[in-house]
Amino acid sequence: MCLALVPFSVLPVSGKAALETDVLHDSARWQALPDTPPVPDDNPQSEAKIELGKALFFEPRLSLTGTVSCNSCHNLAEGGDDSRAVSMGIDGKLGTRNAPTVWNAAFHSVQFWDGRAPSLEEQAKGPIINPVEQGLKDHAVAIRQLKKLPGYMVAFKQVFGEKDPVNIDNAVKAIAAFERTLITPNSPYDRFVQGDETALSRTQKEGMRLFAQKGCMSCHSGSMFNGPPMPLGTGFYQRFPTYAGHEEIKHYQLDEDKGRAQTSGKDAEAHLWKVPSLRNVALTAPYFHNGSVNELSDAVDIMGKTQLNIALSDNEIEIITQFLFALTGERPEIQLPKLPVAMGRSIIE
Amino acid sequence: MCLALVPFSVLPVSGKAALETDVLHDSARWQALPDTPPVPDDNPQSEAKIELGKALFFEPRLSLTGTVSCNSCHNLAEGGDDSRAVSMGIDGKLGTRNAPTVWNAAFHSVQFWDGRAPSLEEQAKGPIINPVEQGLKDHAVAIRQLKKLPGYMVAFKQVFGEKDPVNIDNAVKAIAAFERTLITPNSPYDRFVQGDETALSRTQKEGMRLFAQKGCMSCHSGSMFNGPPMPLGTGFYQRFPTYAGHEEIKHYQLDEDKGRAQTSGKDAEAHLWKVPSLRNVALTAPYFHNGSVNELSDAVDIMGKTQLNIALSDNEIEIITQFLFALTGERPEIQLPKLPVAMGRSIIE
Repeated sequence: MCLALVPFSVLPVSGKAALETDVLHDSARWQALPDTPPVPDDNPQSEAKIELGKALFFEPRLSLTGTVSCNSCHNLAEGGDDSRAVSMGIDGKLGTRNAPTVWNAAFHSVQFWDGRAPSLEEQAKGPIINPVEQGLKDHAVAIRQLKKLPGYMVAFKQVFGEKDPVNIDNAVKAIAAFERTLITPNSPYDRFVQGDETALSRTQKEGMRLFAQKGCMSCHSGSMFNGPPMPLGTGFYQRFPTYAGHEEIKHYQLDEDKGRAQTSGKDAEAHLWKVPSLRNVALTAPYFHNGSVNELSDAVDIMGKTQLNIALSDNEIEIITQFLFALTGERPEIQLPKLPVAMGRSIIE
Repeated sequence: MCLALVPFSVLPVSGKAALETDVLHDSARWQALPDTPPVPDDNPQSEAKIELGKALFFEPRLSLTGTVSCNSCHNLAEGGDDSRAVSMGIDGKLGTRNAPTVWNAAFHSVQFWDGRAPSLEEQAKGPIINPVEQGLKDHAVAIRQLKKLPGYMVAFKQVFGEKDPVNIDNAVKAIAAFERTLITPNSPYDRFVQGDETALSRTQKEGMRLFAQKGCMSCHSGSMFNGPPMPLGTGFYQRFPTYAGHEEIKHYQLDEDKGRAQTSGKDAEAHLWKVPSLRNVALTAPYFHNGSVNELSDAVDIMGKTQLNIALSDNEIEIITQFLFALTGERPEIQLPKLPVAMGRSIIE
């Protein structure tokens, strides 16, 4: 499942400077973030649909307590996540995995840490009825809530034009359409790849070279740094941890969660995880599926050990971390939606 | 403490139509919302301060769990509140009172249901360290958190220009400055008062007349419908319930919370409450200090009984409720802030 990485020793270069130049300007290796993500045929984008999706994304009344929306854990004022190790849902209940950022999630071929949702649409169905997240009993309850807010009836009608358009499939289509606008272009890395030699610092360029040289790109490749292009619905997975025996694995409990096997029950999928994107990784601490590691530099150290079986020096860790900081893109301006109301009545029970 | 209300019988009118016209166009009685709220001399508005205040208002890392910001309970995507009977803070903990709307709070002369904070600045200090709200141990912890986010250091410096500007007094000044922009002008009522005769429906005009005639304006007077103009820091209070014995008082537990006496310990202040504004009341269900009444029409019914000792007919209740719907103003556009980050590190512990 792993991309082959051409070892540096076979590259036809004569000195360090030349090597650096060649590697850093290898356009097959480094790709800027595309302007737009893939859009499924059965859910084309439209302004009205994106607006509706934004409202639903910010809608806390899609939770049992009226306190938890998509944005609670995928906060668009922050890194598209919640700064927490594991998310906190209704009534202070805790999840077991770190909230992945929603920024650029539209470029993932599958969703969730274990890739169990084949699309943004399917992903959006999960948290609403997860008992430790938004906690509604089922999707029928969610739709009943939305139907109590006349503004949604109008908006769904406008977007989907059906006779009875307020249903879960349309709701998640709208949410996914909004999420497809949550793209962060123009990171220093992207600007460098597009020809601006000054976009990266000298250290960051060195980190970029090290990132390739050490083997990080075996998995973190492509414009999303999450692996080779995959058809939508098909995940790119790796075993984590790959190399056992490192003390950090126990210390941070990195092998307690069985990853894909946790939901599939298949032993062969134990500890398989979707390779996470490194886009905006500076904004999405803490790290790993259980959010156990607070510092990005520690995460880099651990990845070297558990995935490549190498001990990076403190200097190498620092330089690679500086490069990862260059993957922070520009967050678009987002106007807070004006959520519909039931005049003179609360729909929270 | 109560404004004198001229009884209708003494108004020099000859018929119902004339009476209605006179009452509805009595400019001493009906006032539009001012464009801007009072601003204290020691906290002048500035663009940069408002921006900083907005970030702090949306800042969940000002809570112990990283999940609760001012906006959690005073949601600007909704009615400036949370649709809940009583608010839910960190770890799902419950408060005891209904979150008042932050829209137009800048026009209140005192803050909180019991008026215990003399300014927006003082109010903002409370929830951050309330154990069932944002739950930080003290303000020193809050400031320590902010100082971990370099972007705040820069923003506070820009706004306050002091040597060590990140402190609680400056933080709440910024929050208050932002809140002074949260004004909702141009409600149908305001447009009517400003001369647009078509802004209110016939029913709403009738409700407006009834609202005056029945005595609601004894307390709910002025441009905010919360009493006579008071110097900043001075509250306008009423006893609630005033007339005992109505079954709704027990049913909705309206006399369990002792209001101002709860914090002051003074018996004389038992069941004294700040007269709440009726601005945007259609958006702020459920109602009363304990949020026990879900429907605005029921709240109108109860107010008639407990405050005026009159039984309004179903028709009168409906008509007055329709008038109250006309107090819904235009919510300004709000761009979501981009909160500062500590690169590659979470500040939530």
